[in-house]
Amino acid sequence: VRAEIIAVGSELLTPEHADTNSLLITAGLNAAGFEVRLKSIVGDREADLAALVESALRRSRLVIICGGLGPTEDDVTRGAVARALGRSVSVSPPVLADLRAKFARRGSAMAAINERQAEVIEGAEVLDNAIGTAPGLWLEQDGVHFALLPGPPRELRPMLEEQVLPRVRELGLGRQLARKSFRVAGLTESEVDSRIAPIYRQYAEIQTTILAARGYIGIRLHQWLEAGSMAGAIEHLSARIREELGSAIFTTEDEAMEAVVGRLLRERGLTLAVAESCTAGMIGSSITRIPGSSDYFVGGILCYSNDVKRRLCSVPEELLRRPGAVSAEAAEALACGVRRRLGSDVGLSATGIAGPGGGSADKPVGLVYFGFADSSHSLHLRRVFGGDRQTVRERSTSTALTFLRQQLITGGGGNYK
Amino acid sequence: VRAEIIAVGSELLTPEHADTNSLLITAGLNAAGFEVRLKSIVGDREADLAALVESALRRSRLVIICGGLGPTEDDVTRGAVARALGRSVSVSPPVLADLRAKFARRGSAMAAINERQAEVIEGAEVLDNAIGTAPGLWLEQDGVHFALLPGPPRELRPMLEEQVLPRVRELGLGRQLARKSFRVAGLTESEVDSRIAPIYRQYAEIQTTILAARGYIGIRLHQWLEAGSMAGAIEHLSARIREELGSAIFTTEDEAMEAVVGRLLRERGLTLAVAESCTAGMIGSSITRIPGSSDYFVGGILCYSNDVKRRLCSVPEELLRRPGAVSAEAAEALACGVRRRLGSDVGLSATGIAGPGGGSADKPVGLVYFGFADSSHSLHLRRVFGGDRQTVRERSTSTALTFLRQQLITGGGGNYK
Repeated sequence: VRAEIIAVGSELLTPEHADTNSLLITAGLNAAGFEVRLKSIVGDREADLAALVESALRRSRLVIICGGLGPTEDDVTRGAVARALGRSVSVSPPVLADLRAKFARRGSAMAAINERQAEVIEGAEVLDNAIGTAPGLWLEQDGVHFALLPGPPRELRPMLEEQVLPRVRELGLGRQLARKSFRVAGLTESEVDSRIAPIYRQYAEIQTTILAARGYIGIRLHQWLEAGSMAGAIEHLSARIREELGSAIFTTEDEAMEAVVGRLLRERGLTLAVAESCTAGMIGSSITRIPGSSDYFVGGILCYSNDVKRRLCSVPEELLRRPGAVSAEAAEALACGVRRRLGSDVGLSATGIAGPGGGSADKPVGLVYFGFADSSHSLHLRRVFGGDRQTVRERSTSTALTFLRQQLITGGGGNYK
Repeated sequence: VRAEIIAVGSELLTPEHADTNSLLITAGLNAAGFEVRLKSIVGDREADLAALVESALRRSRLVIICGGLGPTEDDVTRGAVARALGRSVSVSPPVLADLRAKFARRGSAMAAINERQAEVIEGAEVLDNAIGTAPGLWLEQDGVHFALLPGPPRELRPMLEEQVLPRVRELGLGRQLARKSFRVAGLTESEVDSRIAPIYRQYAEIQTTILAARGYIGIRLHQWLEAGSMAGAIEHLSARIREELGSAIFTTEDEAMEAVVGRLLRERGLTLAVAESCTAGMIGSSITRIPGSSDYFVGGILCYSNDVKRRLCSVPEELLRRPGAVSAEAAEALACGVRRRLGSDVGLSATGIAGPGGGSADKPVGLVYFGFADSSHSLHLRRVFGGDRQTVRERSTSTALTFLRQQLITGGGGNYK
């Protein structure tokens, strides 16, 4: 069934900014049985958007419009949709009261300009925005449903998932998308493909996609099923892929690695401390993204300078001179040192050369050592990453977490390859 | 002058793939005096694309279509454009000969299916493809120009630059895009708008866009100038906005806040250490994104547990009992403590309740205190942020950097509002 997505915002028509909201929206619509047939990106001009909405009314069953719901004059979505559908717009007193309460809770006065965000199109349902100030709208005309959502992804995502998709699913279309997904760490995209291609090629009716994401390789299987038919083939393929890849698969629930590691620590009753040099906080901030991480995360030391490595993480002065701060010995000493200093069960460290400067023939940019320590032993992992400074740091962060997961699963014992 | 871009390909309508060719095309068109007013993304269905081309013919002066020129049946672009413009398509003998020669040079026989790529729309000029096999097309109807280009970026880029843009420039429009941009911190989007709207409304010929990005509010001015005219108005508006917003503008060069703060530390010869509780590494990782940050960033302590706050950052036990770890006193004590412990000139701290749990009536989720300390004094900032856990942490990180910048500019002295 035909759906289309319209992204609104002049910044999305510049060479610097691409629309990405539509990827998230597409995933949700597909899962609800809608096929996205067209995406449009338009600037902050009311007439341009109104013309698109008029065309959408003739060709689609579901139209998701994101962006242009802010308080300023260049936020034209409410006006353009109302104009295209021949409806009026007026300030809704309950929405306005909610908006004022939101500002009051933050301890700031609401500017007069924000009143525009309380405007509601005649006949529309209001979709509450728990994160920002712009409420969304849901309306229907001539059998076509429209959802208007704010542009910032952190506002759009929960509103889509909690308010729009349930309404979309109620439209009741029958076809279903059967999906399975896996996340793999510690293997490259082509390693994953060469291992599973001989399997998935036997299932022509299932679309298999392998993609390299930040910190992991994702595998997605999907298949459109008519109402009442069974997802037998996808279950079968899924079981064979799990058998082939084994513990390289760290989740089948789209969990982030930091959530998986957190679960392992909690199950084992262990606490963690980190010593971060080149990542300088990225490992700690990743682990603490998970609510309740204070149950197992004690804290850490950002040992950016050698002086901090020595004084706070107890890395011996002579070790920092040779083999140096970027070495297997330093990584293990940092993991042991932070564990003792912070009194945790487990210590994890990363020390390396993120670049662009600081590399040498035997210690090139991209060289990173990781250390792990618990009460009985310590060990390390060496990696050389390609890419720019931030890429090296991101890969270091996900490798550190993968390394920690591996140690927690195996209980350590021998350096991890 | 109105241009539009149409990207063709069913993979661009999946949750995994976004169109990125249009960014490159937009940069080229803008430089040639064309404004991109609409982008559309459509799948491999001839009727869907033909309908878009018909609309484009009514509304635009220049239409760039990329993708769908391959050899397979799902490559529908030639057929769809011909149908929309009422023209015929036929195999061109010289293009076919070229294609055969290309395959011969690679030492492979041309499959019969590739003959489709020698099809040319009646009246079109052929654009040579030096990298791949699909030639492009350039044609004009009723004063509207169309360029058809292959989808793979490494084929599209040289064809755009060497063959399409020179033709576009020959259309002789002469217009130029004048641009200015600012980034503002410490004010909300509506505060920025209410302060500058009375100014920018006096410049109807300049388009002003205000958008809330992560960690800052962006202001962009742009104006299309006719050949030979001066950018006087945009310079004038820009000067007035700078005067109005003063030091709330932290860059006019699209610099990130962490780069601005790094520059200030370097200029003043100061070193920095951080104590992070709720942000748990986000401030440190942000600062060290900048190459060379080891010149001024010493390191930090992730004081997630109270025990680490007490033992490593010297926050007194009784202070942690009352007023507690989330308080003005604790924030200042953390900044002083980390500064002393790590031996830096300046200390910066953040301690708060990121949620979703842990809030209370007098200390709600979103409450965060920031501390600053140097050799002569310490001070704090209190904020209550809306949003989910990660949003509170991101806002805390950008607020911490904004607070630090403010102290570095003013040299401290009194709590910052």
